[in-house]
Amino acid sequence: MKPSGFACIPREHQGYNHPALIDILQDPENMSTFVNRSALGILPPLDIVQLISESLLSVAPQGLPQVQTMACGSCSNENAFKAVFFWYRNKQRGGSASHEDLESSMLNQMPGSPDLSILSFMGGFHGRTLGCLSCTHSKAIHKVDVPAFDWPIAPFPHLRYPLNEYPAENAHEESRCLEQVEEQIEAYSRRGRPVAGIVVEPIQAEGGDNHASPDFFRRLRGLATKHGCAFICDEVQTGCGATGPFWAHEYWNLDSPPDVVTFSKRMLTGGFFFHNEFRPDAAYRIFNTWMGDPPKVLLLHAVLRVIREKHLLDGTRRAGVVLLKGLTQLQVCCWVAVGNSQFVFAQHSSSQSSMQTSSWRFSTLRWQSASDRLNFMAASSIEAYLSGSDGIGTIVLCD
Amino acid sequence: MKPSGFACIPREHQGYNHPALIDILQDPENMSTFVNRSALGILPPLDIVQLISESLLSVAPQGLPQVQTMACGSCSNENAFKAVFFWYRNKQRGGSASHEDLESSMLNQMPGSPDLSILSFMGGFHGRTLGCLSCTHSKAIHKVDVPAFDWPIAPFPHLRYPLNEYPAENAHEESRCLEQVEEQIEAYSRRGRPVAGIVVEPIQAEGGDNHASPDFFRRLRGLATKHGCAFICDEVQTGCGATGPFWAHEYWNLDSPPDVVTFSKRMLTGGFFFHNEFRPDAAYRIFNTWMGDPPKVLLLHAVLRVIREKHLLDGTRRAGVVLLKGLTQLQVCCWVAVGNSQFVFAQHSSSQSSMQTSSWRFSTLRWQSASDRLNFMAASSIEAYLSGSDGIGTIVLCD
Repeated sequence: MKPSGFACIPREHQGYNHPALIDILQDPENMSTFVNRSALGILPPLDIVQLISESLLSVAPQGLPQVQTMACGSCSNENAFKAVFFWYRNKQRGGSASHEDLESSMLNQMPGSPDLSILSFMGGFHGRTLGCLSCTHSKAIHKVDVPAFDWPIAPFPHLRYPLNEYPAENAHEESRCLEQVEEQIEAYSRRGRPVAGIVVEPIQAEGGDNHASPDFFRRLRGLATKHGCAFICDEVQTGCGATGPFWAHEYWNLDSPPDVVTFSKRMLTGGFFFHNEFRPDAAYRIFNTWMGDPPKVLLLHAVLRVIREKHLLDGTRRAGVVLLKGLTQLQVCCWVAVGNSQFVFAQHSSSQSSMQTSSWRFSTLRWQSASDRLNFMAASSIEAYLSGSDGIGTIVLCD
Repeated sequence: MKPSGFACIPREHQGYNHPALIDILQDPENMSTFVNRSALGILPPLDIVQLISESLLSVAPQGLPQVQTMACGSCSNENAFKAVFFWYRNKQRGGSASHEDLESSMLNQMPGSPDLSILSFMGGFHGRTLGCLSCTHSKAIHKVDVPAFDWPIAPFPHLRYPLNEYPAENAHEESRCLEQVEEQIEAYSRRGRPVAGIVVEPIQAEGGDNHASPDFFRRLRGLATKHGCAFICDEVQTGCGATGPFWAHEYWNLDSPPDVVTFSKRMLTGGFFFHNEFRPDAAYRIFNTWMGDPPKVLLLHAVLRVIREKHLLDGTRRAGVVLLKGLTQLQVCCWVAVGNSQFVFAQHSSSQSSMQTSSWRFSTLRWQSASDRLNFMAASSIEAYLSGSDGIGTIVLCD
């Protein structure tokens, strides 16, 4: 077998060429699924309901019994937004679309093409199609020169670390962001472009590994409920056990679940889970030719079995503990490249020579331009040695 | 092998469970491609360039040597629009994005998020994500309640049939539509929302099987060139030999090719071909996690071989001749249901009893509502008999 097929971004738990996946491929029962591409929306294969029940629905987030498959992460978010717009308009009208709605929508005009919006966060990443891109604010190179909807953007908390040293500052920062959320919702409502949904990642990944507390997300969910906006949790990056529990939003202990949870990447298929209220009120409202890809669901079925049988989420949790301990020890005065467009800068608060790890500060910075990055790389081609309780480690600056 | 996997919308030339596709699936050399999903944009498999060269580039439309794979038709069009916006803005600026462009784009504001538009046609269908949907005007149920960009829409010709009886009327109708195209381009330029691209299907399929002459498309291409707009040909429905030649736009004999040709459905993979000028000027401008799906390109490779070896496009052309002859004979006074949402109405021009087929009129109508359709079905539950040179046929009204 040739060593092709790197899959770094959506890296699967089970690694490459896992026998369980090869079995799926080689099972003659699955051959038709792999060679005949289904139009799932109108002529689904006989066994698709069972397959989706045993795979996707077996990991459905609590409170979200509905699922819709899609081909990729952007399509998942675009269609989640659509489901939210349908729900919001039906709620506004107290029923389905009127004749006037239908007629005017054909010309992209009000009221059929309504002036609704999705609130997103600075640093958020939700995909690269035109609707998603209007909610993406992580890197300018993704967005520049593409027309965007004028939709509200709120700040995402910038927490200070170590968290246990700055509880008051961080609580204040999270409150500041939530106040901005509420101000934006009210401002856009006043200007006739109400917020139908709020979209947020449990961890901003593309935007710089930015975290917020469970309390922040609980209060954000509360604001969505208070203002009648759908709460969309984008777990394209964090889903499928990346953080320990199957869904990262499980850490939040919400009183009521998100309304919609989108997924893709290591789930192998795109799609979104949703509350019963978000089931479209008519056929063909959420629709496209393929509506996902059954071979990917077959593979996911095997991946989920491997995750369960091998207790891989326990492994993720254990690895998390080790990683966190290592990062705590990694508190030296150096630049640490952690990706091709961002890095962590660690600086001691009192003295650069001290190795008292508790008083070091970490902050995430981002390249401002390609030339900044080149200047940095030229200036910092060093190896930094650090000493921790577990011995000597080496940080190699990498691109 | 179980009989699952209907694929009606993107039906392949070679039929279901073709041995050539099963061979692809069973070849151990391909196993890794099927079980390890690649992140094509950053870590493509070693052989992807060769695979794309031998498959997609072997059927590249004349003059379009570049290709980008995508996961579905909507993503193909969304990314084609983005490539067009990049090209247009670089042309406007005379170079790449400025610091101000980059900064303002992060907030969805001008000039980085520019007020550019794509001109589309009434009756057109280009997909269901928010950018594509702003160019789709086929059925209201696809569009209603989804926010749309205010982008220009031109009328698509409504030709009278038989074409050879109405040359003057149809030429006039096509000129009327082209005048509207030019007026819209000028009007949107005046209001500060210039048309970066024109998107059109060679045959409006979802919108009602609407055709225009090669002359119409040649003049449309001319208008795009004249006004500096990209000419985007959406061959998602018509590509891969559906109309006889591999691409339907080959019928037009254009002086200069379209700038972008998008594809999906029976091509098995989505994507778009484009002129060298539309190659992005920086990495990550056209990008997503998967950027298509190599197993689909492997299957396409086999499909293309079958099409060539079995001369399937000759078969399509022969079937077209037979179908056209049959439709010419099918000129009786009756309603003929041709789908679940539209039908052809055939009416004799002089007398309902005459069987002189040359003087019958065909026109395409569409259901206005579900109740219209039910009324029609109740009123027309008849069998219509017709006589043609090849004998007696029966038309059964079908749902």
